[in-house]
Amino acid sequence: MKKFINKPENFVDEMLEGILEAHPDQLTFCGNSKRNIVRTKCKDKVGLVTGGGSGHLPLFMGYVGDGLLDGTAVGGVFQSPSAEQILEITKHIDNKKGVVYIYGNYSGDIMNFEMAAEMAEMENIKTAQVIGNDDVASAPKGEEQKRRGVAGIFYLYKCAGAAAEEGANLEEVTRIANKAKASVRTMGVALSPCIIPEVGKASFSIGDDEMEIGMGIHGEPGIKRTKLQEADQIVDQMVEPILRDLSLEQNEEVSILVNGLGATPKEELYIVYRRISKILKEKNITVFNVYAGEFATSMEMTGFSISICKLDTELKRLLSKNARTPFFEQIDLNE
Amino acid sequence: MKKFINKPENFVDEMLEGILEAHPDQLTFCGNSKRNIVRTKCKDKVGLVTGGGSGHLPLFMGYVGDGLLDGTAVGGVFQSPSAEQILEITKHIDNKKGVVYIYGNYSGDIMNFEMAAEMAEMENIKTAQVIGNDDVASAPKGEEQKRRGVAGIFYLYKCAGAAAEEGANLEEVTRIANKAKASVRTMGVALSPCIIPEVGKASFSIGDDEMEIGMGIHGEPGIKRTKLQEADQIVDQMVEPILRDLSLEQNEEVSILVNGLGATPKEELYIVYRRISKILKEKNITVFNVYAGEFATSMEMTGFSISICKLDTELKRLLSKNARTPFFEQIDLNE
Repeated sequence: MKKFINKPENFVDEMLEGILEAHPDQLTFCGNSKRNIVRTKCKDKVGLVTGGGSGHLPLFMGYVGDGLLDGTAVGGVFQSPSAEQILEITKHIDNKKGVVYIYGNYSGDIMNFEMAAEMAEMENIKTAQVIGNDDVASAPKGEEQKRRGVAGIFYLYKCAGAAAEEGANLEEVTRIANKAKASVRTMGVALSPCIIPEVGKASFSIGDDEMEIGMGIHGEPGIKRTKLQEADQIVDQMVEPILRDLSLEQNEEVSILVNGLGATPKEELYIVYRRISKILKEKNITVFNVYAGEFATSMEMTGFSISICKLDTELKRLLSKNARTPFFEQIDLNE
Repeated sequence: MKKFINKPENFVDEMLEGILEAHPDQLTFCGNSKRNIVRTKCKDKVGLVTGGGSGHLPLFMGYVGDGLLDGTAVGGVFQSPSAEQILEITKHIDNKKGVVYIYGNYSGDIMNFEMAAEMAEMENIKTAQVIGNDDVASAPKGEEQKRRGVAGIFYLYKCAGAAAEEGANLEEVTRIANKAKASVRTMGVALSPCIIPEVGKASFSIGDDEMEIGMGIHGEPGIKRTKLQEADQIVDQMVEPILRDLSLEQNEEVSILVNGLGATPKEELYIVYRRISKILKEKNITVFNVYAGEFATSMEMTGFSISICKLDTELKRLLSKNARTPFFEQIDLNE
């Protein structure tokens, strides 16, 4: 295991300490745990909370900030945060306008967010839940409720976050998050595994000349393992199922997210985007904007994912809004 | 070689095609080569041009945009761009206010920028040059002119770019770039090499349990190869020479850049920052702001660098200004 760490058991807490030390004007913690990350300056608006395991930066705490989320419950590496953490954050950020939970479709996360929602209700805090399930590789069409949440959750955060920042109410923010959820699909590919610090060895093995399409961000099995192919061939196999699943038609408009899983250079992400662009041009689908970089990672895993989000006027407007966190800044050119 | 590419010989041009397709509102090319990257909308101000080899994204073209640079000449992987490319960009962006070349201290780059400057003079374009040489590991104090330019060049771009955007003249922009150059020092460490696509194999080998402190971003030899140590120990050996070289005193203010070389997870960069923060607190040095992420990479190399930039009121103001490129956005909170 070749990592820049101290004791493996301190990986998460030392990482968090570093983040809180680096960005005290933007991030702090609340309640009984430094793993309860919230904005330093709370805002009087509907609250947005996420949470999940560590090892995916900028997921999840990288999306806590202006125009995005208000808090995140941080778990151990690839482990769910506790219901208590989620409740403490909920109480801290609630302004009597309610709180929306947006998180990925993993059983541990669902269980703990559900429990937190029940406890919040007993404290008279209204909550709503939207569960990201954008990974088309993880279950067939018709069984969307079985699909994992991966990088596409960015679009839920961004659009719902912008709506909340504008003063939308609980129902409206929830509607927007659900609309973004219905509009985004993702597919991933991996070339190498990552190592959980406390485990010390790779969670799966893959040949020096192999790739696996559809792999999840915790190394969940994909749909096809083959010899490594050229970038264009790989992209073709990833974009086609997404377009089919989204039933995208000519003249529709989309946002593209090419997400590095950890060790993949930006140069390669743009070689990937080049092919996506060609495919969409041929189909007369318009690209509204492109995000390329690391948005949801699996530590040092080599791989990438492609997310396509179908846009209408409302989502385009929200997607364009200013956002500012220590991990993500976006300037709205219409302002 | 496990990369997401097509034919290795098309690596650079396909990457550029992807970038230009993804960000047409911000980046385009000029003259006879798609490797001459410039802003889509030129501004009436002193021009700022950089250039260098590919394989270092976001260096160099990632810093072309509002509040930063106007153009960059892109070379092959780890190869200098030509003097003709630099000249074409210079002519394209010049508004009779002169052009400042800011680039790293590598002999090929120096030769070609010098030649471009001479050719520009014949066309009545005034130029100035500032050569980044922040890598303290590459030559001892007193021999600064031998030091390589690495991630710290970000501070030259950012401060000079902000000054030019405000309307500063050629002499003033050059003065600011030189001031940032005199204020910043960097030290790197690597755990694994990268592979140049057309070469197909690693440029050096390093043991599974080894690290090399002081390695350059093209794999240039460092100052010490040892068994892999804990993050805190590694950081101590990197920060101490930087502080000594900068002669930093109590109560001074600095900006910190923790730069991933390609495959290092953000989690680890923050474990690194945690230790930097502790060291600086003990010395009563104040941290003005922190950048953590990939600013100057070596494709899929595992490693990171630490840059420390000493700040005064002028540099703090310029460093805080808005910037927007497809690879870097920063919102000025004072505006």
